[in-house]
Amino acid sequence: MSKVNISRREFVKGLAVAGAMTATAGTLAGCQKESSAAVPKKWDEEADVVVVGSGFAALAAAIEAKEAGASVKVIEKMPVAGGNSIINGGVVSAAGSPIQAAEGIEDSPDLMLQDMLKAGLGLNHPDLARVVAEHSNETVQWTINYLGVEYKDKAVHLGGHSVPRSYSTHNSSGSAIVTKQLAKLEELGVKVGTNRKMTRLIQDEDGRVKGIEIEDDYRFPDEGSGTVKTIKAKKAVILATGGFGRDLYFRTIQDPRLGEEVDCTNQKGATGEALVQALGLGATPLQLSWIQLGPWASPDEEGFGMAPHFAAGACFPYGVMVDPETGKRFVNELADRKVRADAILKTGKPAIGIADAKAAGHALAGLADKLIEAGVVKKFDTLEALAAEFNIPFDALQETIENYNRYVEQGEDEEFGKYFRSDIAPLGESPWYSVRLWPKVHHCMGGVLINTKAQVVSLDKQPIKGLYAAGEVTGGVHGACRLGSAAVIDCLVFGRVAGQNAVKEEAWG
Amino acid sequence: MSKVNISRREFVKGLAVAGAMTATAGTLAGCQKESSAAVPKKWDEEADVVVVGSGFAALAAAIEAKEAGASVKVIEKMPVAGGNSIINGGVVSAAGSPIQAAEGIEDSPDLMLQDMLKAGLGLNHPDLARVVAEHSNETVQWTINYLGVEYKDKAVHLGGHSVPRSYSTHNSSGSAIVTKQLAKLEELGVKVGTNRKMTRLIQDEDGRVKGIEIEDDYRFPDEGSGTVKTIKAKKAVILATGGFGRDLYFRTIQDPRLGEEVDCTNQKGATGEALVQALGLGATPLQLSWIQLGPWASPDEEGFGMAPHFAAGACFPYGVMVDPETGKRFVNELADRKVRADAILKTGKPAIGIADAKAAGHALAGLADKLIEAGVVKKFDTLEALAAEFNIPFDALQETIENYNRYVEQGEDEEFGKYFRSDIAPLGESPWYSVRLWPKVHHCMGGVLINTKAQVVSLDKQPIKGLYAAGEVTGGVHGACRLGSAAVIDCLVFGRVAGQNAVKEEAWG
Repeated sequence: MSKVNISRREFVKGLAVAGAMTATAGTLAGCQKESSAAVPKKWDEEADVVVVGSGFAALAAAIEAKEAGASVKVIEKMPVAGGNSIINGGVVSAAGSPIQAAEGIEDSPDLMLQDMLKAGLGLNHPDLARVVAEHSNETVQWTINYLGVEYKDKAVHLGGHSVPRSYSTHNSSGSAIVTKQLAKLEELGVKVGTNRKMTRLIQDEDGRVKGIEIEDDYRFPDEGSGTVKTIKAKKAVILATGGFGRDLYFRTIQDPRLGEEVDCTNQKGATGEALVQALGLGATPLQLSWIQLGPWASPDEEGFGMAPHFAAGACFPYGVMVDPETGKRFVNELADRKVRADAILKTGKPAIGIADAKAAGHALAGLADKLIEAGVVKKFDTLEALAAEFNIPFDALQETIENYNRYVEQGEDEEFGKYFRSDIAPLGESPWYSVRLWPKVHHCMGGVLINTKAQVVSLDKQPIKGLYAAGEVTGGVHGACRLGSAAVIDCLVFGRVAGQNAVKEEAWG
Repeated sequence: MSKVNISRREFVKGLAVAGAMTATAGTLAGCQKESSAAVPKKWDEEADVVVVGSGFAALAAAIEAKEAGASVKVIEKMPVAGGNSIINGGVVSAAGSPIQAAEGIEDSPDLMLQDMLKAGLGLNHPDLARVVAEHSNETVQWTINYLGVEYKDKAVHLGGHSVPRSYSTHNSSGSAIVTKQLAKLEELGVKVGTNRKMTRLIQDEDGRVKGIEIEDDYRFPDEGSGTVKTIKAKKAVILATGGFGRDLYFRTIQDPRLGEEVDCTNQKGATGEALVQALGLGATPLQLSWIQLGPWASPDEEGFGMAPHFAAGACFPYGVMVDPETGKRFVNELADRKVRADAILKTGKPAIGIADAKAAGHALAGLADKLIEAGVVKKFDTLEALAAEFNIPFDALQETIENYNRYVEQGEDEEFGKYFRSDIAPLGESPWYSVRLWPKVHHCMGGVLINTKAQVVSLDKQPIKGLYAAGEVTGGVHGACRLGSAAVIDCLVFGRVAGQNAVKEEAWG
């Protein structure tokens, strides 16, 4: 009975494939690959380091790898480089920065870490979050001194941060960083290959990632529209492919509430195939069902849009949000994103954000008019007209406003404990403004497990040789809920970490 | 450039491995296996259906497969059969049952489904939850009429269920079901092979699961203590291996708060290797980070213990729970499990559950004495003595009790909105009782994705041929939070579904 009918050689091979396993770990079922099947004899292209994606993390990785002397290829499946980073708001945390010092703000990586863990409800992997906090200032200074990124000169204070801690790019957009990253790469002689989609990670029988298969001249989203090619990665492949917010199938597996009727603030390419590829290779999944929704989004425009600025600038702090069926408020308009988004989803229909003339005056100048023109915000002479537009029972709505005004006057929200700013005023001055609000998928907190070197960790608890990842495709840095401006610094820090470590892999072939 | 350097044959093979993919899906990286490496030429044993695990789900699957004419093997890594089911409380939901009818209780699968979705915060996969609800009564009747399980004759009303809906076994333990399942299997000629641990799922190059590798005569938890053998599964392998609550590594990846200092109510064998194996094979993971904790558990006893009965019977409804550092209440003692457990974890130390003599009187007769003898509950002549024992600031504690008594008298908990039962009374009658409370891992809501036939669904969106799963190793039925008594019926229903469908697979070899 002790006869092992799997030949010893094959058994050992199975063990080897599973990586440098600890003596007690079981052998993983998957991925015993025939080398000849997976690894082509001849490759179409090659580089020391192949970076997949072209957002903050990808470009940071490519720059570091190139600066360390490696040959680098960057591929991007969309027709333009920049991923979701290029449409990001461009606010980046840095703990202990010169602009903080100039204002006498005391801060430290420890305090930033503490803020991240608090927001993450303890689901963060503290070792990963610490890497981000500790390298945050150094990395932002690198974007200034090395890349030439320009920021406004005042530290921004975002919710959940103990102190003003964030740099905001001069144009309030992540594009200010991405364009400088792209320019630096060009200067270094690295071009981003757009319209090139990774279709497969190629791994040998020992589990080492040796390269990728791509579709060249790929036309998103048409699978098979490109030409199949292979790229040999002599040292490593770095996945910096972002989240899966636009992958309807995968996201509804993780959170079935997020069906077609829920839009996404991300660019269309945030479809997560690379994450699925990595999982198929035995990468450890974590916290995939923690998908952050933006409660400030409107179903009357696509993607992130402009409504969030009106909702968050006027309706939430100074106005109210009601359920049109009841005419009543149903959640603290300033609760955290998750609480508000869950509450709206639970009502099963878009909520109505309401501002009177004074409240609307707190939004950015000209914003309301732009949104009215776009059909996203509506303007009414009377509250009654607003109620009629959305079939809100008017008596109930009027009572809601009366109650709310009483809370404002007494300085205490008896129903939901909303925080009242010092410049808040009772509602009543026409015209009235409305915006329909329905959450949109915003950020995937979960992804593949990496270690502090940005190596992807397999289910066998070991790094997958030759495979790195950084940014939203990974999980653990942010836990249950990421702080605003923490994602950008996560991408930049771990992108650099991935690039710096990938070049240290021993080259093969 | 259009030359495909992966030979066409190999490329097609890769596609085939990924299952019957849709035309647009990408090829998964993992699991392109060389048939000879994975599948032994000669197997040590064989059966049509191989069931891994021996709890409710496993045994239900084995019974169904055997009754349908298949040869069946059941393996269990622990020295005794029964898994976690045998130490379960033995309460099973059944919507529309005869005992409900006898009491005039109106119920339906739709109402049960609604209750499950509400508790699951919409994270449930509705198609899977519906299968459980719709087959709940039929399945409980099957346990009575076919297996001979004996239940008490009154429907139990557990939290979150709209109506009294659950059967409770005559001995208030899942063992009443498991022993009858085991007896039936023996009658059918199927023995559970204990001390047999699955170490590998064996899959051929087309992705079909063909059998498993085990350690025979395995001595938990010593990896390598057994003899390697292979079992051919001519039709299918069914994974019914339970949760991963005892897998410290994997659970802290998903929820880093659940380190060594957090115990687990499960039996020691709930270590999740089979889940990891299935993921390594490309099974789709879902909601792995949703791990339910029991807030009623004590660090002063191992596993589930008896403290939960005292905490939930006396301290929570009739007494208070305080933070020993502040002497103050910090959460509604009757909030849902997640809210309470999260609140205790956040304080960073065990909370103190407190009951006076009257409150303690609501616990099961004799329970307090047993727990005092075990050193889990402590008894004090005065509140001051209780405070001294745990270094609770006495003045603060006294104020807490005074405030609480005022809330009880006025019928409204001003601080946490706790529901007061009609027989509640102010605290003050000595002796006083204490129990230290620190959450324990109780149930893994997440797992692998299955379809309504209990087939495991791969990352390529297709069933993995020859692989089924049921019970806690799967995810999606319960969403964010499972209702009490819903896990048992989930196991029984999907165990049967798995067994019934596994026999329909075409046999190979």
